[in-house]
Amino acid sequence: MASLSKNKIKYIHSLEQKKIRKEEQVFLAEGPKLVGDLLEHFPCRFLAATSVWLQKHPDIHANEIAEVSQDELSRASLLKTPQQVLAVFEQPRYTLNPEAVHQSLCLALDDIQDPGNLGTIIRLADWFGIEHIICSQNTVDVYNPKTVQATMGGIARVKVHYTSLPDFIRSLGDAPVFGTFLDGKNMYEQPLSATGLIVMGNEGNGIGKEVEALINRKLYIPNYPQGQETSESLNVAIATAVICAEFRRQAAWK
Amino acid sequence: MASLSKNKIKYIHSLEQKKIRKEEQVFLAEGPKLVGDLLEHFPCRFLAATSVWLQKHPDIHANEIAEVSQDELSRASLLKTPQQVLAVFEQPRYTLNPEAVHQSLCLALDDIQDPGNLGTIIRLADWFGIEHIICSQNTVDVYNPKTVQATMGGIARVKVHYTSLPDFIRSLGDAPVFGTFLDGKNMYEQPLSATGLIVMGNEGNGIGKEVEALINRKLYIPNYPQGQETSESLNVAIATAVICAEFRRQAAWK
Repeated sequence: MASLSKNKIKYIHSLEQKKIRKEEQVFLAEGPKLVGDLLEHFPCRFLAATSVWLQKHPDIHANEIAEVSQDELSRASLLKTPQQVLAVFEQPRYTLNPEAVHQSLCLALDDIQDPGNLGTIIRLADWFGIEHIICSQNTVDVYNPKTVQATMGGIARVKVHYTSLPDFIRSLGDAPVFGTFLDGKNMYEQPLSATGLIVMGNEGNGIGKEVEALINRKLYIPNYPQGQETSESLNVAIATAVICAEFRRQAAWK
Repeated sequence: MASLSKNKIKYIHSLEQKKIRKEEQVFLAEGPKLVGDLLEHFPCRFLAATSVWLQKHPDIHANEIAEVSQDELSRASLLKTPQQVLAVFEQPRYTLNPEAVHQSLCLALDDIQDPGNLGTIIRLADWFGIEHIICSQNTVDVYNPKTVQATMGGIARVKVHYTSLPDFIRSLGDAPVFGTFLDGKNMYEQPLSATGLIVMGNEGNGIGKEVEALINRKLYIPNYPQGQETSESLNVAIATAVICAEFRRQAAWK
């Protein structure tokens, strides 16, 4: 065990940059709950923790382990309130098979920009038993540290893929592809299938034109009371949750 | 019209502090959409905008208006990407009447800590036609600039109150008071009323013991498939949305 060199701290901070994460094929995670979850799923390249944490976890596997003081941890951490342990994990490689959309309910994200929104969506996908999220190439990086933290461990179970969304949707044949639009049909009055793809759009601009043309089931989340003056939209993570909940309610409790 | 003095910029930045906001009874909002919404609802003490924005809005009412360069706006703004206009509004004063809970659906928040979560909850309350949110005294301040921004204008319509939650709930008599718990009843299998109070708990600790004892309808949001390994919780704003959506679905589309 070694303490943290300046170079190591520099390396950890450099993982805020997508370019470095991509070159190194790694990502950073912090905190006992999250790191504990991820250690069961991904190879760990490096782990730094307080002696208290290390004593509680004598059997961890990592290429390199450093016992650090709270002060050293604070210097390395990207969080406002550092917590006992941080670790660098290898990025997993997943294969994207269009069959997933024929056999289960999947999510597609068209240019989601906010790291927190992506992380929150991964967390709720985990809750609603959605295993695959297909992101457009311009969607924010899933290994952004803010995204990883917001998943609260969901990133260990939900597989996030990046690809051309229009090409992917075209490869699906006649699978149901859902999206929400102001002129869509009230989702409470539509039969919602247990398989298919739900597309969610960018925070400011919604679903792009090319993807919109490929959506064959247009839905609408009704506000309440309908037609009332309201803020004209829901946050994208909130909208995703409300839609996924309705799909699952219809599948299991209708 | 005057440009921005150093003192004015200092004043704007000081509104990040709850103490100053409380003394001055004001709050800060930024961006054309949000400021435009709020100008219709709250007296404006001070507004700073680019000449382009001001030319488009010749009829605004504010005690003081400053035409500023993009550069000056950037120095005053609390946002990463400043947008055309910022304004200081007077805090509204609302009266809290327990009758609201007997006549409509209301939300209660027990020590929500994250400003973004509170803002997102206000935005979705607006969407779901919830007019009153009753917060415990330790809930984050609704006039925190991050909260105000995240409401996306919902703060103009949703009335947020701070009070002792246990005392308030005791004053409600036999009104239905809902909360989510792991040992609650599946919300899809319960009749949900169109009036009453839905209590949501702190991000880390959930609903406090004193408040829990006053809840007379314990609910559970089922995950999917039920009993599957998942992250053990939803973000509080996500959970609030899923619950509110189900209350409104049952009221309007069951």
